Amino acid sequence: MDVAAIYHEAKSKYAYAYDNETLHIRIRTAKNDVDKIKLIYKDPFYWNIENENNKDKELKEDLSSVPMIKEHSTGLHDYWICEIRPDWKRVKYTFLIEDRKAKIIFGSREIIYLDKEDDERRLYDLNNYYNFPYINYEDVYEAPDWVQDTVWYQIFTERFSNGDKSIDEDNVLEWGSTDNVSNDMFFGGDLRGVINKLDYIKDMGFTGIYFTPIFKAPTNHKYDTEDYYSIDSHFGTNEVFKELVQEAHKRGIKIMLDAVFNHCGWLHPYWQDVIDKGRESKYYDCFFINGDTPINYPVDGNNNPKINDMTYDDITSLNFATFAFTPLMPKWNTGNEIAREHLIGAAKYWIENYDIDGWRLDVSNEVSHQFWREFRKEVKGVKKDVFILGENWDEAYPWLNTGQFDSVMNYELLMAIWSFFGQNTNDNIHIKPSKFIELINRVLVTYPKNILKNMFNLVDSHDTKRIYTVCHEDTDKTNLAFLFQFTFPGTPSIYYGSEVGMSGENDPNNRKCMVWDVNKQNDKIKNHLESLIELRKSYKAFTSTDITWLDYDDDKEYLIYKKKDDGQEIYFLINNGDKEIYVKLPQELVNEKVMDIYNQKGIMLTDEVIMKEKSFLIFEKE
Amino acid sequence: MDVAAIYHEAKSKYAYAYDNETLHIRIRTAKNDVDKIKLIYKDPFYWNIENENNKDKELKEDLSSVPMIKEHSTGLHDYWICEIRPDWKRVKYTFLIEDRKAKIIFGSREIIYLDKEDDERRLYDLNNYYNFPYINYEDVYEAPDWVQDTVWYQIFTERFSNGDKSIDEDNVLEWGSTDNVSNDMFFGGDLRGVINKLDYIKDMGFTGIYFTPIFKAPTNHKYDTEDYYSIDSHFGTNEVFKELVQEAHKRGIKIMLDAVFNHCGWLHPYWQDVIDKGRESKYYDCFFINGDTPINYPVDGNNNPKINDMTYDDITSLNFATFAFTPLMPKWNTGNEIAREHLIGAAKYWIENYDIDGWRLDVSNEVSHQFWREFRKEVKGVKKDVFILGENWDEAYPWLNTGQFDSVMNYELLMAIWSFFGQNTNDNIHIKPSKFIELINRVLVTYPKNILKNMFNLVDSHDTKRIYTVCHEDTDKTNLAFLFQFTFPGTPSIYYGSEVGMSGENDPNNRKCMVWDVNKQNDKIKNHLESLIELRKSYKAFTSTDITWLDYDDDKEYLIYKKKDDGQEIYFLINNGDKEIYVKLPQELVNEKVMDIYNQKGIMLTDEVIMKEKSFLIFEKE
Repeated sequence: MDVAAIYHEAKSKYAYAYDNETLHIRIRTAKNDVDKIKLIYKDPFYWNIENENNKDKELKEDLSSVPMIKEHSTGLHDYWICEIRPDWKRVKYTFLIEDRKAKIIFGSREIIYLDKEDDERRLYDLNNYYNFPYINYEDVYEAPDWVQDTVWYQIFTERFSNGDKSIDEDNVLEWGSTDNVSNDMFFGGDLRGVINKLDYIKDMGFTGIYFTPIFKAPTNHKYDTEDYYSIDSHFGTNEVFKELVQEAHKRGIKIMLDAVFNHCGWLHPYWQDVIDKGRESKYYDCFFINGDTPINYPVDGNNNPKINDMTYDDITSLNFATFAFTPLMPKWNTGNEIAREHLIGAAKYWIENYDIDGWRLDVSNEVSHQFWREFRKEVKGVKKDVFILGENWDEAYPWLNTGQFDSVMNYELLMAIWSFFGQNTNDNIHIKPSKFIELINRVLVTYPKNILKNMFNLVDSHDTKRIYTVCHEDTDKTNLAFLFQFTFPGTPSIYYGSEVGMSGENDPNNRKCMVWDVNKQNDKIKNHLESLIELRKSYKAFTSTDITWLDYDDDKEYLIYKKKDDGQEIYFLINNGDKEIYVKLPQELVNEKVMDIYNQKGIMLTDEVIMKEKSFLIFEKE
Repeated sequence: MDVAAIYHEAKSKYAYAYDNETLHIRIRTAKNDVDKIKLIYKDPFYWNIENENNKDKELKEDLSSVPMIKEHSTGLHDYWICEIRPDWKRVKYTFLIEDRKAKIIFGSREIIYLDKEDDERRLYDLNNYYNFPYINYEDVYEAPDWVQDTVWYQIFTERFSNGDKSIDEDNVLEWGSTDNVSNDMFFGGDLRGVINKLDYIKDMGFTGIYFTPIFKAPTNHKYDTEDYYSIDSHFGTNEVFKELVQEAHKRGIKIMLDAVFNHCGWLHPYWQDVIDKGRESKYYDCFFINGDTPINYPVDGNNNPKINDMTYDDITSLNFATFAFTPLMPKWNTGNEIAREHLIGAAKYWIENYDIDGWRLDVSNEVSHQFWREFRKEVKGVKKDVFILGENWDEAYPWLNTGQFDSVMNYELLMAIWSFFGQNTNDNIHIKPSKFIELINRVLVTYPKNILKNMFNLVDSHDTKRIYTVCHEDTDKTNLAFLFQFTFPGTPSIYYGSEVGMSGENDPNNRKCMVWDVNKQNDKIKNHLESLIELRKSYKAFTSTDITWLDYDDDKEYLIYKKKDDGQEIYFLINNGDKEIYVKLPQELVNEKVMDIYNQKGIMLTDEVIMKEKSFLIFEKE
């Protein structure tokens, strides 16, 4: 047994409260190394009273145990899980692990090889037990109820729809007049445009809109905020936004805005005050500045940086902290009271006065945990079921387990989906089903199951290529990617235009004008997505965390998985290859009558099915 | 290479901010399995600007790297560490790991075997890097400066010193009249007694007092609080306590009180109100009660539980949550606003009005993290350098890394010390030096180094046997245990009376009356402790986290270690065996002139020293 590879940690993603009554305990072992694991557990105090007063009672009877199930496997490891409901919300536990040759106690302080029968008495050494001291409901992860059932639509306002032609009409380019967009172009997209399209959004089946920033800012992307309390005038007014929220809510659509709280834009009045007054400004400590003034780079007459004249040395030795190396985006010092009140004040303002439903947190991993904890407390204090979504590109458990976010953008999932259905942008390796399953399993064991249900699952965004481009503009592959996205636990998000097959390389090319001409839209993708949204709403199993890999074939490039929820069992067959193939069915489907729920027709199965290249099947057993 | 055994996790105790500029990165490998590890790192954004604009530049030059050092080994693993100071407070990093046969990139998403020279280019895949997104100073662990230099003295007031004979004189037993103490005895120890003994405490060298509870409560241990705002009248008055704090401060002694916030006592007025009014009480939700009234057990006429009439069934099916199965200690619902304000109000009250310096948190692991975060914010708001110490018996990192405690009681260290110098109470196994080193190393790698410096290191307490008893009343062994305690990073705590060799089995026998008769005190222990306290104050290396094991011998039962701090190098030689032995010196001591700092005499070493049974030597190289 590779004992050195075994990993467990108390009070972590390996041992978490699933709800106020239930604990999930996980353990990692080397792959295919261990045959059986049992969790042995006991109330820490019940133990004492029993032992003190029942000296002769057979100790064995006093221990509870439950077999652990091999949940998922990654490239190197198996992950095991079990669920327990301690009688008094507290528990001590240890592991009994077996392979063909050995049996060990894997305890918190010692590993004990059980050679003789009597060695099992060492299970009664409470000091060698891990501890989950108490399930306190205040610490149990909880996201708003509505999130799990939401299908998101992400809108980059400047490029979605021009609804108020009167705004700045002389300076905007004709809608869709070029696909070669750049970050200094303006096409006139605005909030009136979004209001006009709410029925489209509703009819597609989306139930939440995530807006990239819409507050006053000079750029088209508006990640350089000038005023956190005003809608940018190119997009409309605060009143138009109020109307938008009301109209969206009428249609059952939630509204989430982008909180750019890591940094502000150059024109933010606090920053301008610092430029003017240096250390004398009362906002000086709202930022991280060395010396009396932030200015140690070429400026024009208005103290604006002459970006084009700046050298690498200038950029990398700025007198102040910025986002990345962008002098136009000074980083906030969120430890400063004035800064904190300003930002959290804005977060509350849009909830209190405009009734928004969520905040997506830009560059959330670079802002302090302390700030986000206060942020959560304050915004949930205003509206309990506000959704808090972090932009974290890496494994994000440290932001999800201590009163911070409800969810993060699931870029780990995106990368797995890209490398299987599209191509991995970094090394051009197209992966096989076995590898894909490993990557997906890794996501599944990285997060507690209650968090998985609320992950924000995306296949593209304003920060990535579009999925259609990742899939080499292959409609079938794109549709397979969407299928997997919609069957993964969590809430799917579609980036505006990707539902009609828009293409796009990295920023800024992924921000082209929305294609509204139905003749130029990709119907096969659009209809497919409408079906997926509908199916996801009708079949709870789509959203479930209970996923079982039934079969795969790396040569033929197919895979079969099953999702279960409350008696419902749905089977997904994906042929990711370029050839038509015969797929041998797993035993539980052979000769079964099933419903093809995508095409809504009954089928009598034999022992195999024929699948066209790049196709899928979705069955429910009757 | 046992790749499956390698473990690293971003943003965890494996990757933490040591201070506002410095990161420590750790990684675990199977023991003796790997020859060399290099950390490869880079600013995530600098990377981009370089690569975009220097396409032909040799990529290799762009990466920074630092060798990792094998810090400590446990039974199954080696732990490696390195320190980096990212230029812009953010960093992406990956690991290059080598043994004789293979070289791998151990990345955040993939393990890559480097077979060909060119494979190293895969180091430039930023997606395979771990991320430490930003060192935000608000999140960096920070304990009060004064803590590291403190030597604690723990006082159980009822048994320390009777200074005010007029209190309840008819009901107290004669001081020390029995060693067979029980939990219903009272001997009259009080705060006036402590004031009288402050000079003794100061003269011994102690600089902090940790009091077990002193608030109004019916028991002698007072863990069943009746009034969080009043000193128990058996101990004195709030005014006497104020005098005590002032007198202690005059002598440079800090005062820490015990916050029993997991539960209250039966007589607490909120609980009494619930007993009276049931669900109608406004305090009903301050506790966890099922049904209309907590009473579902035998009571007397005053609604007090008839403990002796209660069956196991009664005790294990109470209508309300308690500490352990103690009906007299109802658990607080710290999610309730009234409860929270009452408790945090008390925590602030004793700081604001009596100027105490610290809070020790009873049963801290069963109280919610949310509560402790608010607690910290509130008490540090009143007095920034208040010390917060948790009673956590298990690995406690989840309570130390997110704005909760400054430190925990280091029971992990206690257990290692007991099993080496005393005996392990559970299995009577007396461990050898090699095993002891493994156990100590485990503590050293469990906590970040900045936390280690503030750990509350104890060898006994009111909740354990006394160290003298653990060491079978062997003075030399007891002194070795104290020696190790005092050379371990963190702050040592002495339980009242253990400094004069008091014995004691588990509670209540560990709570005998303090022995003040100098003829009955163990001088050898007392003098030894005075020396250790003095040495620890004079030699910074005693407190350092930099410990190197130089040699050990499991047969002869000796071990040699070195501690370093800022150029200072102190060598500790411990003969833990029952025989006089010759100890071969490590090369760096052979033929060196050293100072025996314990006995303050110079010695010219050869290549070995003779050591009496159960003895030690402390050298400083000249």
